[in-house]
Amino acid sequence: MNALPTLSHIAVLSHPNVDAEGARAAEIAAYLTAHGCPAASGALYDDALRGRIQQGEFQLIISLGGDGTVLRAGHLCAPNNMPLLPINLGHFGFLIEVRRENWQAALDQLLAGDYWVEDRLMLQAQHWRAQKQLGCWEVVNEAVVGRGRAVRPVHLAVRLDGENLTTYVADALIAATPTGSTAYALAAGGPVLPPALRNILLMPVAPHLSMDRGLVLAEGATLSLEVISDHQAVLSVDGQPPVDLMQHDRVVVTVSQNVLRLVRFQPPGAFYRNLIALMDQNPAVEEAN
Amino acid sequence: MNALPTLSHIAVLSHPNVDAEGARAAEIAAYLTAHGCPAASGALYDDALRGRIQQGEFQLIISLGGDGTVLRAGHLCAPNNMPLLPINLGHFGFLIEVRRENWQAALDQLLAGDYWVEDRLMLQAQHWRAQKQLGCWEVVNEAVVGRGRAVRPVHLAVRLDGENLTTYVADALIAATPTGSTAYALAAGGPVLPPALRNILLMPVAPHLSMDRGLVLAEGATLSLEVISDHQAVLSVDGQPPVDLMQHDRVVVTVSQNVLRLVRFQPPGAFYRNLIALMDQNPAVEEAN
Amino acid sequence: MNALPTLSHIAVLSHPNVDAEGARAAEIAAYLTAHGCPAASGALYDDALRGRIQQGEFQLIISLGGDGTVLRAGHLCAPNNMPLLPINLGHFGFLIEVRRENWQAALDQLLAGDYWVEDRLMLQAQHWRAQKQLGCWEVVNEAVVGRGRAVRPVHLAVRLDGENLTTYVADALIAATPTGSTAYALAAGGPVLPPALRNILLMPVAPHLSMDRGLVLAEGATLSLEVISDHQAVLSVDGQPPVDLMQHDRVVVTVSQNVLRLVRFQPPGAFYRNLIALMDQNPAVEEAN
Amino acid sequence: MNALPTLSHIAVLSHPNVDAEGARAAEIAAYLTAHGCPAASGALYDDALRGRIQQGEFQLIISLGGDGTVLRAGHLCAPNNMPLLPINLGHFGFLIEVRRENWQAALDQLLAGDYWVEDRLMLQAQHWRAQKQLGCWEVVNEAVVGRGRAVRPVHLAVRLDGENLTTYVADALIAATPTGSTAYALAAGGPVLPPALRNILLMPVAPHLSMDRGLVLAEGATLSLEVISDHQAVLSVDGQPPVDLMQHDRVVVTVSQNVLRLVRFQPPGAFYRNLIALMDQNPAVEEAN
Repeated sequence: MNALPTLSHIAVLSHPNVDAEGARAAEIAAYLTAHGCPAASGALYDDALRGRIQQGEFQLIISLGGDGTVLRAGHLCAPNNMPLLPINLGHFGFLIEVRRENWQAALDQLLAGDYWVEDRLMLQAQHWRAQKQLGCWEVVNEAVVGRGRAVRPVHLAVRLDGENLTTYVADALIAATPTGSTAYALAAGGPVLPPALRNILLMPVAPHLSMDRGLVLAEGATLSLEVISDHQAVLSVDGQPPVDLMQHDRVVVTVSQNVLRLVRFQPPGAFYRNLIALMDQNPAVEEAN
Repeated sequence: MNALPTLSHIAVLSHPNVDAEGARAAEIAAYLTAHGCPAASGALYDDALRGRIQQGEFQLIISLGGDGTVLRAGHLCAPNNMPLLPINLGHFGFLIEVRRENWQAALDQLLAGDYWVEDRLMLQAQHWRAQKQLGCWEVVNEAVVGRGRAVRPVHLAVRLDGENLTTYVADALIAATPTGSTAYALAAGGPVLPPALRNILLMPVAPHLSMDRGLVLAEGATLSLEVISDHQAVLSVDGQPPVDLMQHDRVVVTVSQNVLRLVRFQPPGAFYRNLIALMDQNPAVEEAN
Repeated sequence: MNALPTLSHIAVLSHPNVDAEGARAAEIAAYLTAHGCPAASGALYDDALRGRIQQGEFQLIISLGGDGTVLRAGHLCAPNNMPLLPINLGHFGFLIEVRRENWQAALDQLLAGDYWVEDRLMLQAQHWRAQKQLGCWEVVNEAVVGRGRAVRPVHLAVRLDGENLTTYVADALIAATPTGSTAYALAAGGPVLPPALRNILLMPVAPHLSMDRGLVLAEGATLSLEVISDHQAVLSVDGQPPVDLMQHDRVVVTVSQNVLRLVRFQPPGAFYRNLIALMDQNPAVEEAN
Repeated sequence: MNALPTLSHIAVLSHPNVDAEGARAAEIAAYLTAHGCPAASGALYDDALRGRIQQGEFQLIISLGGDGTVLRAGHLCAPNNMPLLPINLGHFGFLIEVRRENWQAALDQLLAGDYWVEDRLMLQAQHWRAQKQLGCWEVVNEAVVGRGRAVRPVHLAVRLDGENLTTYVADALIAATPTGSTAYALAAGGPVLPPALRNILLMPVAPHLSMDRGLVLAEGATLSLEVISDHQAVLSVDGQPPVDLMQHDRVVVTVSQNVLRLVRFQPPGAFYRNLIALMDQNPAVEEAN
């Protein structure tokens, strides 16, 4: 929760499919540059800009978009230990404090150093087939093992720290971060966890006749989800395109070494009030980006 | 709930992927024939046998398998107004009274006329694109409009009798029969409806910040679910392979003219006791067939 | 759903604890009288007026207040087969179509015969100790058997049509009408039932490790709830002051001969839209009356 | 999680209402004494024995009974920083590892020093009226502010760290420890928290149209629940007899200085497996003691 040293370079990333947002990103970058903080802008998937980010040219990332954009930007920031300031262009957003209409005030606060950085736990999800690791992902919200296109539940075996825990027949099992407790896991009936918690939330989606409550796991737990069903199951991390799982594939979830570092202007206590305010609206609206 | 006239021809259908079940089906057909009731047997998807069924050669169908087999056999029986006697070879099964080890006793009761027929409401689900109907299905358990392979919620608009009701951002919306209230809708958090009810149950799966309770609709209601999201959504009826839906496609659900006619040996009151007994086991086991 | 013959006498009942409402009731009665329909007004518990109601002097009751007032007025109307027109003075109200600011327009519609009457199922709840019936109540929303003042669950045995169904350890069991499905049972996690349904909804409140879903019972069911715990349990009907239950007391719930007859101006289809609209507000406000 | 020094004096407390348990307690005390560890026994509410406990005569307490007995014994142990070994005589029990039939083996392990001590977070609940504190309780499972005998929801305002959070209209609000997450809060729909967590779980019971999910609060949070309703509300701690609350009374809940120190023989990882095993039984049985 420590403020950063004086900022010099900032990258402003915009949602790639929305042209108007590129202009907005450029506007924000120009504003920052004009105020003494050189900034570049580009689309989220601009390879050149991503390369510069990965080479350490920037000290901070600003994302323009909804929760999806924040998640993608987070995947980029976390391994490079860079803070992320999300500005909301969507309707939804438990992660995002700054609404688009307030971007200028927020940037002034940022440039004045009037902010703090909130570290959010991330997970690591590994995809194993027999003794071979096929993939590995950093997780901001949740790793989901669930049904693919067929609308039939999958059968999953859960191991905790190497020991059998139980099995589920369900649409999906969600392994969520505290950050993700306000995303898919909330829709599935889960609790809200405080942002600073260091625990994994295991939450089933539409389980058949088994334990249907969220399990908050002990700190340091290693969770393994094995596919028992022989029909199509998938792994999806933070809503990204799913990866096919075969029978007996395992997804192993642990706490990551990385954290998502969010730039914050409101005090920590604002989390629960913002949450209640969001839930008391009725945003059954297109989730953006 | 009236008993049938004396039985003459029965078709015994077995789950197609399990060789041993074909032998069991033949054994049951032989038993029936030996006891004065000519019977034929074959796999569920045996075209010749299905043709004979559709030409009205048989008076009753026996299905060997789990819930999936019952559903498929039900789709075959209902339009031909034939009663169905399911014999359970699976682990699950709210629909099925007769366990495999009891098949002989059950057949003796059947041949003695010592049974009744329970009519179960079915739904009809139509798939519309603009003014064109692309498909139509008979529904024993549920019609589901939900996410495809991508693990992202879909945005659906609900109309009731032609008027806008509300919208959902959810993994899926389930339009279930009372029979289906003990299937997917139950896993999604829904209530149990009595088998004789004539109402549709609308149940969301993992809805985001909207009404998460089951809605039992008024008798005679016409339900329309329109896909608002632009990413992949699917329609699946009774767990069958899904059909892709495009943006603005509609799925219209009404009560069907057909009913599922189940051969029953236990009195009607057994429904709730069987239900409680099943739920007090912990059948988080591979759902069969 | 048939309109009534021309109205002559109407009684306007106001919430007894709110002085201003007595004046409003008198104003409404005067308005009706001035428009050719003689009317009287008084507080809900005015014995003289209640006596006149029970002697059949009036053809219709108007209630001024929140849901509680509607329930009390309903208890008065139903045995006398009188329609009830509720006018809302509270914040809550699934039962009430007419808001206070619209009373004059509603009365004009009433006097013009431009309305219909919606029959709502009622229950009868009987309190039995051994072979003796100690009390009997008409139920508009729900009969609740639950914990008394001590914050400990009660243990209840459920019988359905004379046969053991299951047991619950829970704060309470709710036997609700379809009307009550939008009241306490909804808060406890239950489904919404259509107003015209003829079935009892059994819904537990905070059950320990047992079936936690609503059960909609078959039409004509007789439900018996027996207190197994030896500590204090109570019966409460429609939120009225509770009655103490002793160990082995039974509460027997069936469908009543009476119905609640509600005067309606909106078409039947308005029910679900009003429901969604109410739930999309956030009325975590003092429930009135 | 450190083992204790060699044990010398142990007090064995039995459930007060069960005569046979007094004899069992004496038997256990005799066994301990015969094996070199002087022990005394008595009923849970035996004033003389409680006095000796509070004067520090004993190093460890053994409780005989169900969850209720553990809670009462915990209230006695915690302020004196004494470990507690619960032996189960009931049917329920997430807190209790040792079943009655295994007491001798467990005592042998205890005397051999083959155990560890698990510290469980406790809460402190204070009852305030205006500026006056009327009571203060140590909490093992949960502090509940809820309806009294009248079966009507109460209206409560929630403050978090001195700031308004939201209001609830509900049967009750539960402020639970991680230990209590497997007790009343679980029945109310809450998540399971790991025993070592240091956070309060706020869980509503049957809330009307408001947030119905569990909120795990930030570590160090101060929670205040104010009664807004003017009808009877109560405060109950760990299922003890309730205390009446008046309108505008506040219950303030914080983490306690004390902890419940449980003697454990199974490794920490056993928690989730025991939990699943317990939930897969169907113990809808009289909760004991």
